[in-house]
Amino acid sequence: MALTQTLRPGLIQLRVLDFDKSLHFFKEILGLDEVGRTSDGRVMLKAYDEFDHHSVVLRKADASGLDYVAFKVANKEQLEEIKDKTEKFGYKTTEIAANTEQPGFGKQYKFTLCTGHELHIYNEVELSKDGPMIKNPNPWHKPPRGFRAVRLDHFLLYGPGIAEAERFLIEVFGMFVPEVCNTADGKRLAAWITGNNKPHDLAFVEYPKPNTLHHVGFFLQTWEDVLNAADLIAINHLKLDIGPTRHAITRGLSIYFWEPSGLRIETYCGGYTANPDNPQRVWDADQLGRGLFFFSGEMIPSFLEIVT
Amino acid sequence: MALTQTLRPGLIQLRVLDFDKSLHFFKEILGLDEVGRTSDGRVMLKAYDEFDHHSVVLRKADASGLDYVAFKVANKEQLEEIKDKTEKFGYKTTEIAANTEQPGFGKQYKFTLCTGHELHIYNEVELSKDGPMIKNPNPWHKPPRGFRAVRLDHFLLYGPGIAEAERFLIEVFGMFVPEVCNTADGKRLAAWITGNNKPHDLAFVEYPKPNTLHHVGFFLQTWEDVLNAADLIAINHLKLDIGPTRHAITRGLSIYFWEPSGLRIETYCGGYTANPDNPQRVWDADQLGRGLFFFSGEMIPSFLEIVT
Amino acid sequence: MALTQTLRPGLIQLRVLDFDKSLHFFKEILGLDEVGRTSDGRVMLKAYDEFDHHSVVLRKADASGLDYVAFKVANKEQLEEIKDKTEKFGYKTTEIAANTEQPGFGKQYKFTLCTGHELHIYNEVELSKDGPMIKNPNPWHKPPRGFRAVRLDHFLLYGPGIAEAERFLIEVFGMFVPEVCNTADGKRLAAWITGNNKPHDLAFVEYPKPNTLHHVGFFLQTWEDVLNAADLIAINHLKLDIGPTRHAITRGLSIYFWEPSGLRIETYCGGYTANPDNPQRVWDADQLGRGLFFFSGEMIPSFLEIVT
Amino acid sequence: MALTQTLRPGLIQLRVLDFDKSLHFFKEILGLDEVGRTSDGRVMLKAYDEFDHHSVVLRKADASGLDYVAFKVANKEQLEEIKDKTEKFGYKTTEIAANTEQPGFGKQYKFTLCTGHELHIYNEVELSKDGPMIKNPNPWHKPPRGFRAVRLDHFLLYGPGIAEAERFLIEVFGMFVPEVCNTADGKRLAAWITGNNKPHDLAFVEYPKPNTLHHVGFFLQTWEDVLNAADLIAINHLKLDIGPTRHAITRGLSIYFWEPSGLRIETYCGGYTANPDNPQRVWDADQLGRGLFFFSGEMIPSFLEIVT
Repeated sequence: MALTQTLRPGLIQLRVLDFDKSLHFFKEILGLDEVGRTSDGRVMLKAYDEFDHHSVVLRKADASGLDYVAFKVANKEQLEEIKDKTEKFGYKTTEIAANTEQPGFGKQYKFTLCTGHELHIYNEVELSKDGPMIKNPNPWHKPPRGFRAVRLDHFLLYGPGIAEAERFLIEVFGMFVPEVCNTADGKRLAAWITGNNKPHDLAFVEYPKPNTLHHVGFFLQTWEDVLNAADLIAINHLKLDIGPTRHAITRGLSIYFWEPSGLRIETYCGGYTANPDNPQRVWDADQLGRGLFFFSGEMIPSFLEIVT
Repeated sequence: MALTQTLRPGLIQLRVLDFDKSLHFFKEILGLDEVGRTSDGRVMLKAYDEFDHHSVVLRKADASGLDYVAFKVANKEQLEEIKDKTEKFGYKTTEIAANTEQPGFGKQYKFTLCTGHELHIYNEVELSKDGPMIKNPNPWHKPPRGFRAVRLDHFLLYGPGIAEAERFLIEVFGMFVPEVCNTADGKRLAAWITGNNKPHDLAFVEYPKPNTLHHVGFFLQTWEDVLNAADLIAINHLKLDIGPTRHAITRGLSIYFWEPSGLRIETYCGGYTANPDNPQRVWDADQLGRGLFFFSGEMIPSFLEIVT
Repeated sequence: MALTQTLRPGLIQLRVLDFDKSLHFFKEILGLDEVGRTSDGRVMLKAYDEFDHHSVVLRKADASGLDYVAFKVANKEQLEEIKDKTEKFGYKTTEIAANTEQPGFGKQYKFTLCTGHELHIYNEVELSKDGPMIKNPNPWHKPPRGFRAVRLDHFLLYGPGIAEAERFLIEVFGMFVPEVCNTADGKRLAAWITGNNKPHDLAFVEYPKPNTLHHVGFFLQTWEDVLNAADLIAINHLKLDIGPTRHAITRGLSIYFWEPSGLRIETYCGGYTANPDNPQRVWDADQLGRGLFFFSGEMIPSFLEIVT
Repeated sequence: MALTQTLRPGLIQLRVLDFDKSLHFFKEILGLDEVGRTSDGRVMLKAYDEFDHHSVVLRKADASGLDYVAFKVANKEQLEEIKDKTEKFGYKTTEIAANTEQPGFGKQYKFTLCTGHELHIYNEVELSKDGPMIKNPNPWHKPPRGFRAVRLDHFLLYGPGIAEAERFLIEVFGMFVPEVCNTADGKRLAAWITGNNKPHDLAFVEYPKPNTLHHVGFFLQTWEDVLNAADLIAINHLKLDIGPTRHAITRGLSIYFWEPSGLRIETYCGGYTANPDNPQRVWDADQLGRGLFFFSGEMIPSFLEIVT
């Protein structure tokens, strides 16, 4: 297998404050499909172009935020290898039995990064009954809705000690780091990290408060779809954060906004094809504004300050 | 490394009949940059968004066609492993010393597939002096030209015994096969094969004549760029073959045409993200017209018959 | 008023053979809204971005085809003036009383062109209750559906004596002719004619059989929407005629297909801004293939031969 | 003629502080072509898709700003009629002889609006030697450059007494007003005014200081071209003002920035088709932020305050 170890972030569980409004957003505006509900009332969702059982879980809670992100591993052997390496790296892992925490999912291992974020790994997951066609397939099997989100794409996490987290993802998850931002004295300020050809599966920004979520990113097909998302943000009276804009970092074309429970969501298209053999792109901290918001070239303070 | 073994097709050498006109096409219309010339008069070219020394070589010859395709391997150890596995699979390999056949390239191994096509593998290649920016990078460092081709993308090869070729690419190159077309009696008619998240690095169609090239594909960024390519085909009086159209297979948005020496070129955008864990898409041979030319749903005879 | 006389083709009545399937096409695939039904069972439809009561009427009949096209005139005085000039030009006009033939429409005058086509003119028409927003308006008031057709746009009519029809439209309707195609001996083969900034409200091709419809054109917003239309043609198993392609004539980006009753429909975006003071574009008949199908440059025989 | 009286704004003369940098911007970044220079050193420019001799004139001056806007009238008779009506309306007109002030232009009349802006009217102007093709034309005759600006499109003028200016443009220029913004007590705050199917040829905002220019707008073909403009703004280190964004007013997709002499430029695509018979769209002043910057829905203070 030429694509090995962690294939991609395949699942995220989010806490939402206003369950009904957030669910309406994820289904009718972002365009995910409801797969079903867990016995404890969580809702499982997936994007129209995803094959696996579900990729997004919403849980009602007193404060919005991230429960955890789970990465799909290429096969069962590598799942055990990564678990062992994780332990060796120094993070204690806990097994979650198949079909308990997440219906349709096989065994998971969970552990906590130095940045305070809970990560899971898993290999087995049932195929969705409503996934893309595979026999003489059409490009889509029912008309995509709302933003027409294609898939769960990536996360930006804020926390302390991101240099260690980056090393973990390279050494244990087998990822590479297409793009970084360093301070003038050479310290890592931010890193964009991937295990495939996307410019990032996840990114980190160094930040004192642990276990902090900046945003969850969903992929859109085109710049026209970013426009459609922007129009729907306004039509549905969602609060815009930033965009549409170009990230020079990743080259993505993006719009940020707040879903009804206050989670920052990014919808995003484009981005370069990341190759592990290409040189790493490096940003100076004083150019980070240009790196993030290429058109204005200026940092937007809320981007660094407002997190959940 | 999560992306391992053969990373992608990194180099193609093409024979062209009308060297000057073909060179003009590749540079001024397709938009590649000339990197330099070899001592024996071949021209080395690359797309604006490629990092490596060059990706396309044109050689003047009495008949147009494909000399060979070379795949970049993730590291030196895997290069030797793949060489050994290739021998074990039954294909004799020959070493090409660094910087001989291809300036800027390290050691290559060459061998011939059962389909008659010459393939190379290599790991080392110098970075281009004119590659994408890596320090506080802009999305491009000079305005893309003509078709604005982003990169060499894929090949379609016709030849006998493609089931064996497919098995070789899986077992030795570590690739997977996102999409296939089978005859009514279950034989492989065509296969789309990749070692990364592109829907294909190369594809095969079963065909009696060995060592046959159907087309070389270059990647464009958007459907607007496919339109721009189509307009430039007409403005420059190139001969259109097919398109713009959608391939249901790969989901690519494509246009085919003939460069001045008679090689079929595809320029292409879109396509799904191929994942090794997703189910294989399967086409019935009687649906191949729809799979290739989704809008009309009808096979275009020239597509199956005209090859070089 | 700087836009005077005939503002645009505002209404078309079509005969359809398979009423249910055609209605399904116009509503669910093309994306028009049903406004209501006449007492004799015709269905009135409009596009989401049209203000007037309705623009398309379907009538069940034994053979598909065009009943008539109606042009909206800028005001009541000019309606009478145009009626008078039409009579003077030599075409007998007949009055249709308000709210008889077409609910919501004021008085119409009808007459027959030398080409055999029935045209109407009218000024008064009620506003749709479901038109675009006008108080602090959003870009759309409900999500466009299917092809997301913006408006009824234009017609291509085949018939004898188009030079006279062209003269009538200039002298009586106040139109101009941005683009024409002439035979080698200087006779008019085709003309694209408009009363506003669109490249054509209607076009004529010289043809022996009178009262012949080539196609009805609906406007789409973007080349992405042309792609969406093409995908929906395939997904809904409609028969593609031609495209997606560029017309060098009008510069429109277009796709032609057959709706279920066998009427040729064009969906179309782009096109230059036609100005009455710009020079007329002139095509030689032997370049008409390039003018119509710019990418291939070759005439498609069915385009000239299959009409209803 | 169905398009009569003032056809469109055909010419603008701008004062620029840094002549060389501004000229570089207009030519190499915006993509206009230099037509020639006047004997007093002004530079005449035109967009690639414009037929007339030139549309933009740059004049070196001590302060940047607008000299005047000139409107092309449909014919000589209407030029005289509009001149007479202008005098009758109360604005004194002055004749400028052909080929004096503007090479290639026939007789002009100039006068000053109550808002302090100088307007011209003219009918005759030579065709550019470098205009769009008219014999078997390609969509463009040389590759568009930089932003690929299609044409001079519109202006936003700030000044006192805009209700009178609006009345003048309706009564004398024959224009109509597709969209307005009113204060809570019913006074006109802003008006978008056109003489054709564009949503505006010019717009006014009520403002105490006379003869003030807010921005000059150039038309781009697509949202992809707005993105290209945004990227080139950043790559060329121009200062972004606002965007890319949607105007709900006009529905245009827009980006504002400052050219090197400090003039605010808009590049813009889309916009609805304005029809004189459609209802007027009306905005409440407290919704103007949403009307101008639909995605955020919030007024950007600099938009109201920074003018030249």
